Amino acid sequence: MYHIVKALVYDGPGKKQLADRPQPALIHATDAVVRITRTTICGTDLHILKGDVPTVAPGRILGHEGIGVVDEVGTGVSRFHQGDRVLISCITACGKCDYCRRGMPSHCEQGGWILGNTIDGTQAEFVRIPFADTSLYLVPENADEDAMVMLSDILPTGYECGVLNGAVKPGDTVAIVGAGPIGLAALLTTQFFAPANLIVIDLDDNRLAVAKQFGATAVVNSSAGKAAETIMALTGGKGVDVAMEAVGIAATFGLCQDIIGAGGHIANIGVHGTSATLHLEKLWSKNITITTRLVDAVTTPLLLKTVMAGRLKPARLVTHHFPLSDILKAYDTFGNAAKESALKIILTNK
Amino acid sequence: MYHIVKALVYDGPGKKQLADRPQPALIHATDAVVRITRTTICGTDLHILKGDVPTVAPGRILGHEGIGVVDEVGTGVSRFHQGDRVLISCITACGKCDYCRRGMPSHCEQGGWILGNTIDGTQAEFVRIPFADTSLYLVPENADEDAMVMLSDILPTGYECGVLNGAVKPGDTVAIVGAGPIGLAALLTTQFFAPANLIVIDLDDNRLAVAKQFGATAVVNSSAGKAAETIMALTGGKGVDVAMEAVGIAATFGLCQDIIGAGGHIANIGVHGTSATLHLEKLWSKNITITTRLVDAVTTPLLLKTVMAGRLKPARLVTHHFPLSDILKAYDTFGNAAKESALKIILTNK
Amino acid sequence: MYHIVKALVYDGPGKKQLADRPQPALIHATDAVVRITRTTICGTDLHILKGDVPTVAPGRILGHEGIGVVDEVGTGVSRFHQGDRVLISCITACGKCDYCRRGMPSHCEQGGWILGNTIDGTQAEFVRIPFADTSLYLVPENADEDAMVMLSDILPTGYECGVLNGAVKPGDTVAIVGAGPIGLAALLTTQFFAPANLIVIDLDDNRLAVAKQFGATAVVNSSAGKAAETIMALTGGKGVDVAMEAVGIAATFGLCQDIIGAGGHIANIGVHGTSATLHLEKLWSKNITITTRLVDAVTTPLLLKTVMAGRLKPARLVTHHFPLSDILKAYDTFGNAAKESALKIILTNK
Amino acid sequence: MYHIVKALVYDGPGKKQLADRPQPALIHATDAVVRITRTTICGTDLHILKGDVPTVAPGRILGHEGIGVVDEVGTGVSRFHQGDRVLISCITACGKCDYCRRGMPSHCEQGGWILGNTIDGTQAEFVRIPFADTSLYLVPENADEDAMVMLSDILPTGYECGVLNGAVKPGDTVAIVGAGPIGLAALLTTQFFAPANLIVIDLDDNRLAVAKQFGATAVVNSSAGKAAETIMALTGGKGVDVAMEAVGIAATFGLCQDIIGAGGHIANIGVHGTSATLHLEKLWSKNITITTRLVDAVTTPLLLKTVMAGRLKPARLVTHHFPLSDILKAYDTFGNAAKESALKIILTNK
Repeated sequence: MYHIVKALVYDGPGKKQLADRPQPALIHATDAVVRITRTTICGTDLHILKGDVPTVAPGRILGHEGIGVVDEVGTGVSRFHQGDRVLISCITACGKCDYCRRGMPSHCEQGGWILGNTIDGTQAEFVRIPFADTSLYLVPENADEDAMVMLSDILPTGYECGVLNGAVKPGDTVAIVGAGPIGLAALLTTQFFAPANLIVIDLDDNRLAVAKQFGATAVVNSSAGKAAETIMALTGGKGVDVAMEAVGIAATFGLCQDIIGAGGHIANIGVHGTSATLHLEKLWSKNITITTRLVDAVTTPLLLKTVMAGRLKPARLVTHHFPLSDILKAYDTFGNAAKESALKIILTNK
Repeated sequence: MYHIVKALVYDGPGKKQLADRPQPALIHATDAVVRITRTTICGTDLHILKGDVPTVAPGRILGHEGIGVVDEVGTGVSRFHQGDRVLISCITACGKCDYCRRGMPSHCEQGGWILGNTIDGTQAEFVRIPFADTSLYLVPENADEDAMVMLSDILPTGYECGVLNGAVKPGDTVAIVGAGPIGLAALLTTQFFAPANLIVIDLDDNRLAVAKQFGATAVVNSSAGKAAETIMALTGGKGVDVAMEAVGIAATFGLCQDIIGAGGHIANIGVHGTSATLHLEKLWSKNITITTRLVDAVTTPLLLKTVMAGRLKPARLVTHHFPLSDILKAYDTFGNAAKESALKIILTNK
Repeated sequence: MYHIVKALVYDGPGKKQLADRPQPALIHATDAVVRITRTTICGTDLHILKGDVPTVAPGRILGHEGIGVVDEVGTGVSRFHQGDRVLISCITACGKCDYCRRGMPSHCEQGGWILGNTIDGTQAEFVRIPFADTSLYLVPENADEDAMVMLSDILPTGYECGVLNGAVKPGDTVAIVGAGPIGLAALLTTQFFAPANLIVIDLDDNRLAVAKQFGATAVVNSSAGKAAETIMALTGGKGVDVAMEAVGIAATFGLCQDIIGAGGHIANIGVHGTSATLHLEKLWSKNITITTRLVDAVTTPLLLKTVMAGRLKPARLVTHHFPLSDILKAYDTFGNAAKESALKIILTNK
Repeated sequence: MYHIVKALVYDGPGKKQLADRPQPALIHATDAVVRITRTTICGTDLHILKGDVPTVAPGRILGHEGIGVVDEVGTGVSRFHQGDRVLISCITACGKCDYCRRGMPSHCEQGGWILGNTIDGTQAEFVRIPFADTSLYLVPENADEDAMVMLSDILPTGYECGVLNGAVKPGDTVAIVGAGPIGLAALLTTQFFAPANLIVIDLDDNRLAVAKQFGATAVVNSSAGKAAETIMALTGGKGVDVAMEAVGIAATFGLCQDIIGAGGHIANIGVHGTSATLHLEKLWSKNITITTRLVDAVTTPLLLKTVMAGRLKPARLVTHHFPLSDILKAYDTFGNAAKESALKIILTNK
């Protein structure tokens, strides 16, 4: 017999509630059920609540990040056992399809980003995780739990879509457009590769101050509309080696095109709802590379090692804590991020 | 005392003549003067004649491709001597600036694409070549001279901007949009990497027939407006691994976006005069890479080896021969390429 | 109730028999049982029979290559069904461990090379395949069955250990030391990358003649002890870009060191039983790369695509066919490969 | 008329003197003469003095590192002018030959390591630098001069031969065998890539203490002969991802083989006088990569950027300063490095 558990449920555009739901059960042999101990809210959840993500049906439990304790595993799960403390990847990977085997589980035939999207997610007391063996990671003994939650999505996203796709190398000049949690995750992980200059651009002076603390060597407030000129001046007219778009609108993607140097990389991280103008009439001869990517979360083991080695301190991204029972309050805080100086908010469950 | 030589001169939009000009002389110690034996006309020359390339001033001798015999070298030239038969690169490389040392001489601080653009070019009996040591290549003894002319520009362009930037690998499905000389050069050099499927798209059935002979495994005439549907059907709905844009207009760049598969590469080869729409709302999560490049011509030595080994037969691209004195006629033929079934036209000098 | 089936059994050094064995059954949920339709003998099987491979215990059914028809699958197998025609990989991959996820299933914690080694293999009427979903491949409808058998081991071995590790690129000069089946598989797949010169070295003129037919541009019989001098002369004293060792003895590895050019790659393919001398006193400053690899067989899908596209014709490696019931005769023929002009021998079952 | 200048001259095995020599003059148009302001002594100079480097003839002025001020340039030099403060690369690059254009000027047809080897070097008041445009770098205005000297040789050597060839990536476990100046240069630059564990092995506890200060996460004194066991225990029996050999003897190269994990990289940095044993019988199936390299010094611009950005502080390697006139005393100190706790010694000239 299953218990009733608390969960944050999407009720259609603009509507959500903390509802009672039956505790999730195993469906397939490769499933695990995990008792959530910490979860968080993502900018994507706010998009869903606006009704921008049509794959999310009303009634869906949101959330694709979190850590917890394995409660039950199916007969096909061999790498995890009841009681294991686990990190939940935002990307569910079957491990068998062509995409998984090409290292691109974001496009897994049966998985990808499904948690809190096409199946119930992690903003709940319990969650069912399909393909547990290839979608969970063991949390090391002495790990900082807040840090671990950052490894579900935002650190691999900043690292894979921004840093790896941007091909950052020592000595580079890197611009990150957008200093929200994802831009800051990119800022932290860009420093794995010893760039010489790290310019962060945003509209919010508070976030820019945080960026400075997190390692930016220069910050530019773009509200005056002079960001491109400022950055071109900072780079002696040459432009940057790498520009990361961490906002998700046409204007910031345009800024990346304005500041990219010959031979440079524009790495898109943002989620875009509309098309953008690509200035091929200027860029066709500039030897540039533009990349897009839905995070594959294949670098989670690597990131875990850097966190455990103390090279990366992602808990710095956490600004607020709430009990899971106060998740509606947490959403309010996160929804007013600028006013509340909020970055990532941790929800704890027992 | 310098002689008078014949040269094709741009006289402003829509105007050109075969004019008498003083034979070019050495200016800098690193210059060579080359007597042209074979040259050709590029699609870019037609753009210049339309007035589309503002860096080209009236009075300029056109042409950036060709082979010839070294007539005179400056005191700073150490690798070439009078009488050497040489291949002229379309890219002039100083070999010393940051861009040259990064392998990107297309953006050389003193060179790049300057021949037939900001300095006089190769459609003449003689041409001055700056930085001769790093901008010329020795023509091997038993080389096919027509093949050598193809190595000045169009083969490195197809190979670097299309094949290398597209990261073609064995087993791939590759689409080449545009079957003009550059698209066909990409078609020939794509076969270095054993793709499984090679789809060529064009509006002209004659060019598609040539593409078939050159190794295309499927051809699609896009005049009916169904190219994207056809290619998606050919690929079982997955899209292609690599799409090369070899036309230079927004519509064909759009087609590349329509047919690209998850994880795929769009390699732009075309010269664009206007911006294009980038469908980030669809592509942000598709893990794609888009590249642009002005040819660097750094692969010329490699391509020369494949030609001499018989692995690449670029003389297949040559459809017509004229004496240099008939260059105006040659321009007419090249200007009516579809009607004349013209690809590359060789102009011979003595 | 299980039937009795025929199998080639290793009975300790120097001893083997075609024995009756119980038909293998499923053990784990992720297993499949496959009815073998074609298998083959590998040079490694001869090593086992000499007693050189201590992990193989007497009583073991040999064989790690083959194709067949799925007879039964465990409850954890989702990608294959009874009746599917499948290609068996020589490498068993769990798909979940760190090594598998790094693309290195040769070192899979529960798999790797186990077939015909630590578990019963494919030289039998039936075989049990662990981790079937990630260790089998569907055979396409109209595939040549002999060609498919070559994809179990020897083509991925030549391609991964020789060609990919050797980093062959267009225009390269490549030397392959050893023209046995593995060296010839490397020869075939090296041509994916359009090398300019392809030199094959062996002691056997017959095999060198085959190498010529398979695309070698030069062959060198090393029995006279002048191979290094000959190759240095062929390369104008510069040495080769890539040297592949496909024999497995110190002398041939030494030859690779003698002929490698500055900046070159030595790709070891051979199985070595003893150490070799590494001439660091000559090589420390030559900017060379040496690689070793147990095949991971991760390129099987790619190779399958090139075979189906007609770019690779591996059935050319097959010289003999025997019914499985004549496998002892087939071993005799394979054991006298030089005299019998044998390369790969196919054993057919019904 | 040329002046007499002081220079450290090699007089045959075991013999050196601070001698009077005529000030060097321009020979070729591409030469510069540089007045040395700072130079240093390399371990290689000690090898030369032992008579180990046969290319160095008696009478040769030693030294291949240093900074200075341009005194005179030939007519073929365009990027430097009298009075420019310059960094001298240990590698002289013509910029035109095949090797230079492949990014491998260590093997430049007319250059490579020639300073203090086949032509007079930098341990003198003045030095002639061939191919000045491609063998010198401008010293930025506010640069630390001691740091700049480290960029002539030891930092690019540690970085290119150790870190880049070792393919260090975030989260890796890296072992550096040898904590002399080169090993420590590798230690500093390995940290560009955020390894999780950085183990340094040496016989000298003082150098290991320095390694700790420079970022080693573990140090192992190998004098007890238990280094391999210790490192295997530290890595849970898996071995390291990257092992760098920074000593140059067979025993330390052997240690690298003992500790390398499956899929790992052994990057040789040391100068070897004898061969080593390569344990192919163990390594053939371990998927490892071994590299050798004479430094190309192509990363000097990149390293300069990281130094100027404060990401790399190479002046930490400098333990002693002497005036150039005391260079014999400096050689004594450097020759007793362990006793004197000496790493790099700077010699200043005026």
